[in-house]
Amino acid sequence: MSDSTERRYNFSAGPAAIPLAVLKKAQEELLCLPGAGASVMEISHRSQQFTEIIEETESNVRSLLGVPDNYRVLFLQGGGQLQFSMVPMNLLLGSEHPGAYVVTGTWGLKAEREAAKEGTTVVSWSGAEDGFRQLPKKGEIELPSSPSYVHITSNETIQGVQFQDEPEVGDVPLVSDSSSDFLSRPVDVARYGLIYACAQKNAGAPGLTVVIVREDLLERSREDLGSMLSYRLQAEAGSRLNTPPTFAIYLFLLITRWLQEKGGLEAIAERNQRKAKILYEVVDGSDFYRGHPEPAVRSAMNVTFRLPDKTLDQRFLKEAERRGLQGLKGHRSVGGVRASMYNAMTLEGAEALRHFMLGFEKQQAGS
Amino acid sequence: MSDSTERRYNFSAGPAAIPLAVLKKAQEELLCLPGAGASVMEISHRSQQFTEIIEETESNVRSLLGVPDNYRVLFLQGGGQLQFSMVPMNLLLGSEHPGAYVVTGTWGLKAEREAAKEGTTVVSWSGAEDGFRQLPKKGEIELPSSPSYVHITSNETIQGVQFQDEPEVGDVPLVSDSSSDFLSRPVDVARYGLIYACAQKNAGAPGLTVVIVREDLLERSREDLGSMLSYRLQAEAGSRLNTPPTFAIYLFLLITRWLQEKGGLEAIAERNQRKAKILYEVVDGSDFYRGHPEPAVRSAMNVTFRLPDKTLDQRFLKEAERRGLQGLKGHRSVGGVRASMYNAMTLEGAEALRHFMLGFEKQQAGS
Repeated sequence: MSDSTERRYNFSAGPAAIPLAVLKKAQEELLCLPGAGASVMEISHRSQQFTEIIEETESNVRSLLGVPDNYRVLFLQGGGQLQFSMVPMNLLLGSEHPGAYVVTGTWGLKAEREAAKEGTTVVSWSGAEDGFRQLPKKGEIELPSSPSYVHITSNETIQGVQFQDEPEVGDVPLVSDSSSDFLSRPVDVARYGLIYACAQKNAGAPGLTVVIVREDLLERSREDLGSMLSYRLQAEAGSRLNTPPTFAIYLFLLITRWLQEKGGLEAIAERNQRKAKILYEVVDGSDFYRGHPEPAVRSAMNVTFRLPDKTLDQRFLKEAERRGLQGLKGHRSVGGVRASMYNAMTLEGAEALRHFMLGFEKQQAGS
Repeated sequence: MSDSTERRYNFSAGPAAIPLAVLKKAQEELLCLPGAGASVMEISHRSQQFTEIIEETESNVRSLLGVPDNYRVLFLQGGGQLQFSMVPMNLLLGSEHPGAYVVTGTWGLKAEREAAKEGTTVVSWSGAEDGFRQLPKKGEIELPSSPSYVHITSNETIQGVQFQDEPEVGDVPLVSDSSSDFLSRPVDVARYGLIYACAQKNAGAPGLTVVIVREDLLERSREDLGSMLSYRLQAEAGSRLNTPPTFAIYLFLLITRWLQEKGGLEAIAERNQRKAKILYEVVDGSDFYRGHPEPAVRSAMNVTFRLPDKTLDQRFLKEAERRGLQGLKGHRSVGGVRASMYNAMTLEGAEALRHFMLGFEKQQAGS
């Protein structure tokens, strides 16, 4: 393997690209957080320095997303998959009040399967039949009479479908796995009961999971739940029931500052749309590249497409890698190509991929 | 707060000091892991580069500790406290086979309380009556007739007591919370059913939890356990059921290499004993400093002592901080002073604290 330390364009689906300015700041402070006498990884999670870090991080998340006062922001561990269990453990109200799942891709499917281990669930909509190319249209979600909550996956990284608006669920708490589009666009948090997101797409390094939960739902956490698995106890302890992933929280702080410098979520959403459009225009203007999802529900985060055959897919990926465009391999369940372009991907990166796609198509046509 | 980037002697109980050479290497590679085109935080946990990292880490742990082939090494999240729940979730065999707890301090107490939420437990020994200054003597542990396992805390960070040898429990699986002395000395792994340790004492950054489990015990994990909470499923997935804390694992890899360079666990244990002796000699040779535990069971990791009164405790801590000795405040439940000296603490640091202790005592005697 090469020893090169040249950074390449990183289209990885997650862990994914982190803004270079954030990495540079973390690098600068890695041996000693100014004033702390030690690295941020080496100081107590109850020290004044770390308390300032976790409080500023929460405050920045609140202002970026406009989180209402009756919501708590938690910093947990275990990724989206531990939330697949924690959501039903904490929010299910008994077998007459199932958890209702809207299954729009691989992650929604997994979320429902894990929840079914904890209690009663129903699938209120599924896109499995056509390979998850669609999202539910208005009125298609069939809710049971009194669900504990409705669970959606706001963006499916593997199939590349993304909700443009929240589905209408009345006064049932809407729970969203927003792992892959968290902080990529403005969201009306008041429409949700709970939002969760692992950090390694738009919020930094693996090992941190952010949960935003409406305060009244904390009362549902049963007394006999393991402390680490209880939203209520985690909220009461200010996410410091035990040592939280301090370095990942620090990195997330740097990312929230970077988002503020970039103009906040309106500005970042506009840039994300521009990046996605750059690639979707190539797909739409070509018979060579075939997009996986229906155009109306395509993701701004994960652009998924295939070439005319698997040999060409392979040649495309190999050649892209050689040109410094990495992490483009589609998930094995869908195949083809997947270009993940979270907040940290630059317009320049999207342009470089567009340029490569056009050139590759021309080259194949000529061969 | 000061903007100084000068590193001080860090006696923090955890998160705790990390070897400077490890931090420097991580700093050097933070923007780009050689050959990976990106930071270790930005690459897929299924990439070739990260696969090499996790495999070398496991291999180093195996060789440092001499882990037998019939044990699995898992890299999980959630700290020791999630293990307080996962151990009984996975290992309890039913109400006729309680989990037996040897409660030697604050952490053992918490472990038992969490386990009691998951099933039947018994306290087979407790040091609560005398403030956890003792450990069970031979024959004092009263096991029930057919326990699922016996749980101990190998080192109690708050009280500063540490098992010198494993208690004799016959063929009952011995489970050890070794969070605070993991990799600080050689251990006969074959005497254990399961060993767990959070990383932020001797294995790097918060967010990583290492579990070493005997293979036959994996069969106890029930089918209906949430996937992230099942030792069996985590083992089957090679700790990559979802994205593991990749940066913390990478840092742990650097620490295992550092341990090998230092001569392995025999050598590090010898150094840890020397550091502890430097401070215990001051305590033993003085009426001014009073050690918390009985001398025979004192910890090589956490040296706990008090001064004649609380005002002096405060003055000691303030003056130490001013001299660049930080993180010495005892846990609020015990008070006084606690000097935590994990693997990364240097002999020089222990000497500096000894020097300060002697000077402070003399100064008080003269005032």
